[in-house]
Amino acid sequence: MRYTILTGDRPTGPLHLGHYVGSLRQRVELQQHHDQTVLVADLQGLTDNGQNPEKISENTLNVVADYLAVGIDPDQTTICLQSALPALAELTMYYLNLVTVSRLERNPTVKSEIEQKGFERSLPAGFLVYPVSQAADITAFAATHVPVGDDQLPMIEQTNEIVRSFNRIVGAPVLTECQALLGKVSRLPGIDGKAKMSKSLGNTITLGASEQEIQAAVMQMYTDPHHLRVSDPGQVEGNVVFSYLDAFSADPEHIAALKAHYRRGGLGDMVLKRRLNEELQTLLAPIRARRAEYLADKGELIRLLAAGTQRAQAVTAEQLSRVRQALGLALQDDMAGV
Amino acid sequence: MRYTILTGDRPTGPLHLGHYVGSLRQRVELQQHHDQTVLVADLQGLTDNGQNPEKISENTLNVVADYLAVGIDPDQTTICLQSALPALAELTMYYLNLVTVSRLERNPTVKSEIEQKGFERSLPAGFLVYPVSQAADITAFAATHVPVGDDQLPMIEQTNEIVRSFNRIVGAPVLTECQALLGKVSRLPGIDGKAKMSKSLGNTITLGASEQEIQAAVMQMYTDPHHLRVSDPGQVEGNVVFSYLDAFSADPEHIAALKAHYRRGGLGDMVLKRRLNEELQTLLAPIRARRAEYLADKGELIRLLAAGTQRAQAVTAEQLSRVRQALGLALQDDMAGV
Repeated sequence: MRYTILTGDRPTGPLHLGHYVGSLRQRVELQQHHDQTVLVADLQGLTDNGQNPEKISENTLNVVADYLAVGIDPDQTTICLQSALPALAELTMYYLNLVTVSRLERNPTVKSEIEQKGFERSLPAGFLVYPVSQAADITAFAATHVPVGDDQLPMIEQTNEIVRSFNRIVGAPVLTECQALLGKVSRLPGIDGKAKMSKSLGNTITLGASEQEIQAAVMQMYTDPHHLRVSDPGQVEGNVVFSYLDAFSADPEHIAALKAHYRRGGLGDMVLKRRLNEELQTLLAPIRARRAEYLADKGELIRLLAAGTQRAQAVTAEQLSRVRQALGLALQDDMAGV
Repeated sequence: MRYTILTGDRPTGPLHLGHYVGSLRQRVELQQHHDQTVLVADLQGLTDNGQNPEKISENTLNVVADYLAVGIDPDQTTICLQSALPALAELTMYYLNLVTVSRLERNPTVKSEIEQKGFERSLPAGFLVYPVSQAADITAFAATHVPVGDDQLPMIEQTNEIVRSFNRIVGAPVLTECQALLGKVSRLPGIDGKAKMSKSLGNTITLGASEQEIQAAVMQMYTDPHHLRVSDPGQVEGNVVFSYLDAFSADPEHIAALKAHYRRGGLGDMVLKRRLNEELQTLLAPIRARRAEYLADKGELIRLLAAGTQRAQAVTAEQLSRVRQALGLALQDDMAGV
């Protein structure tokens, strides 16, 4: 069974190991068996960066380089730029009329993000309505599967509500409902043990991190604060080094043995950290090299992004045309014919 | 001084004498001295017709025929279709990030419309944000003047707030502030004397009304309910027949004399109504004929709308490109070059 998958990232900063574990690694696998589109969601990035748009523009090509560096293959995956797909903005305008303000205000994902970001009364309208924009993205590609974390399930539900509402109004199954594709590995914690990882918190390891940066980050990692002497028993739960070893090691049996050893005492943090450092250096060295290579040739990056975007333009324009036809707004097509 | 004027109508029904007095007549004059664009605002029409889009699609070409019939000249005025201008949706997406939800909720025009339409908790998101969409329309054409009624002044203010906010963020005067062009004649009442005129209230005279329909409407007009006998003194204020005579008669001195006569008594409603009927028949006969002619050749209507829309596409796409450049989102242009 071949899925039509839509996924993507807001280009608000360089991608990091959290992205690698949470989505990038999965995409490299998915592209082999499914039709996958990866959207560089610059419009969505602007919804909470309206006052500093340069944050988005500076990161767009970096994110594309990150994708290519980890092995997302532009021949297998359509990599495209959201703001270069006018159909997405147009579909958003149509869908905005099918969703009430109070429904958007009740969206649990949006509610918790509004709280996190401290918007309160200064909530940008674009941020409130971004689930509608996501519904436009998903339906524009007629995506059947959307890889998300648990916290994003309300976005899938919002999309499907719009799909059902639209299909009911036009009396035909024009839009496709989608389902969540929940990843096997959930979230990687920040190196400080915090659930949220971000460049501004300084608790990430980016895909382009240098050898020294990786080592320094691993050495700073939060372990068990009560594990003072090597001989002390240590706690594995909440220990960031083990979270990372779990996520990255190819040898889970060995990790299980290390955990047992750590719990009974006699295994020092430094040994573990050295081990993790080796794993991460091995993983990231070729990614860093490919990333730098791509970023050294921005013309080629732009060419690759343009090729994917062009394919996406055709797909989304056709879907927009279907939506318009269904709404009876077919004058555009009539006008194109004269 | 040549203005750049943007104006338009939501195609929610055939245009009527209220539109003629409130805007259409003015447009026929303005087009001779200014750069005027008239937008058939079908997207905006959908903001409170999301559940019955056919209301919009059915009326779009009628509205274009109305324009042409009253003398809006497609060689002097750019007549274009909102939903066929993707730049408008795209600009809306950018501007939504510059406006807070609470600011939109405080917009007096939107507030009173929400009340009128009885939306309460079922307010469509598209309706709440339509002032942002209007700002996109106005700035996409770099309009300097927007003909509005008093009740629409908050929309102009909202647009200019977005303009100032955008220019401040990008540090350059990319967008142009606009000003209201307040019409000389304010609102024509419905034939029942109500301030609001609408097809659904059945209190309008449409531009395509037949001779019999016009006559029947005039005969039904609300006058002075206390003016029972011809010899009684009558009241001119709130008397719909006089409102219409004021709006349509080419001979204000004669109307002033009629008012004086009516006030002192001895002038019957029927005399006045016959007089008004004659004026309206003379005005509307050629409009009705031209309207029917245009509607008999939809291909020609579509061709005219397509020509105007194509001009508008060029103007708005160029403005969108400027906006993107200013935001640093110039990848589209780079991509177009490869």
